[in-house]
Amino acid sequence: MKALEERIRRDGIVREGNVLKVDSFINHQMDIGLFEEMAKEWKRLFAGKPINKILTIEASGIGIAAVVAREFGVPVVFAKKSKSINLDNDNYCTKIQSYTHGRIYDVIVSKKFLTKEDHVLIIDDFLANGCALMGLLDLVESAGATVEGIGIAIEKGFQRGGDLIRQKGIQLESLAIVESMSEDGEIVFREQ
Amino acid sequence: MKALEERIRRDGIVREGNVLKVDSFINHQMDIGLFEEMAKEWKRLFAGKPINKILTIEASGIGIAAVVAREFGVPVVFAKKSKSINLDNDNYCTKIQSYTHGRIYDVIVSKKFLTKEDHVLIIDDFLANGCALMGLLDLVESAGATVEGIGIAIEKGFQRGGDLIRQKGIQLESLAIVESMSEDGEIVFREQ
Repeated sequence: MKALEERIRRDGIVREGNVLKVDSFINHQMDIGLFEEMAKEWKRLFAGKPINKILTIEASGIGIAAVVAREFGVPVVFAKKSKSINLDNDNYCTKIQSYTHGRIYDVIVSKKFLTKEDHVLIIDDFLANGCALMGLLDLVESAGATVEGIGIAIEKGFQRGGDLIRQKGIQLESLAIVESMSEDGEIVFREQ
Repeated sequence: MKALEERIRRDGIVREGNVLKVDSFINHQMDIGLFEEMAKEWKRLFAGKPINKILTIEASGIGIAAVVAREFGVPVVFAKKSKSINLDNDNYCTKIQSYTHGRIYDVIVSKKFLTKEDHVLIIDDFLANGCALMGLLDLVESAGATVEGIGIAIEKGFQRGGDLIRQKGIQLESLAIVESMSEDGEIVFREQ
């Protein structure tokens, strides 16, 4: 999506270790007008799919998911990061490794809000190694729900997450795929 | 706001210790249509104020804030909970006690995204003892920004947070104020 790529080129900041900071418009300050353009693009890309729920994970996915859910006219469920394993029977639970924060989270979603009747569009801001998405897919599978697709704002195409997801045959729509970037500010996007 | 009060009566669950669970439509599963009605109500209540930014705190405030920001046509900034004091000079930092989670969080916002030019509407899902709001007000004050008002979905009127905020002379608009509730399901709202 050209508008997102241009915005990343203009306002994204590349840091050592292949870190791409987009906190001025995506994951600290949020440009809701841009999110609406992204939502419209996903609506087009997932047209005809019987999506009845948006699934995301706290915290930075929630804002995008809310705007996407408005476009699709469906509710959002956000998976919650938990500090300790929740052993009750009310939640589906999975583990997600965060390389950014150097720890493993237990992530839960209530059984009440994800069921085998649900046709889910998963939304998140970033896809790199795919750990967060694999965790969300695990939750969806536990619930017996159907994944209709995955919408990602920014995919790091040089990490393996995108390939892992596409090999599963899931429709993955990343609106900007970064092929390479350097600290002098050059960012190369995959042609889509 | 009648629609919110009715929804709380219908789908809210009262638990021991004055806990009000609204996770089916506010803070786990999110009813975006309801959030839009709430956003329109806040737009009416804060009409004429020069609001240029919505401020909230992760995680459950973000979804509501995103929908409100769309209605106002402004960006959102969400304050981040941090596990350790961030001693760099890039962020404003405050401490917020969470009674729900029994701990104290460091909460940060980047100096880039909150400045003395900003006229802020603070949005959050709950107001009880006011700890989270006091922390957000502290961040706004650190930045030299102006608080134009505070919009809360559900205020627990029997806790002291609402009074503390109103005593400061800040326009606080809670769309539903619970005066009392009991585990047999009876919920009494303050007349507004």
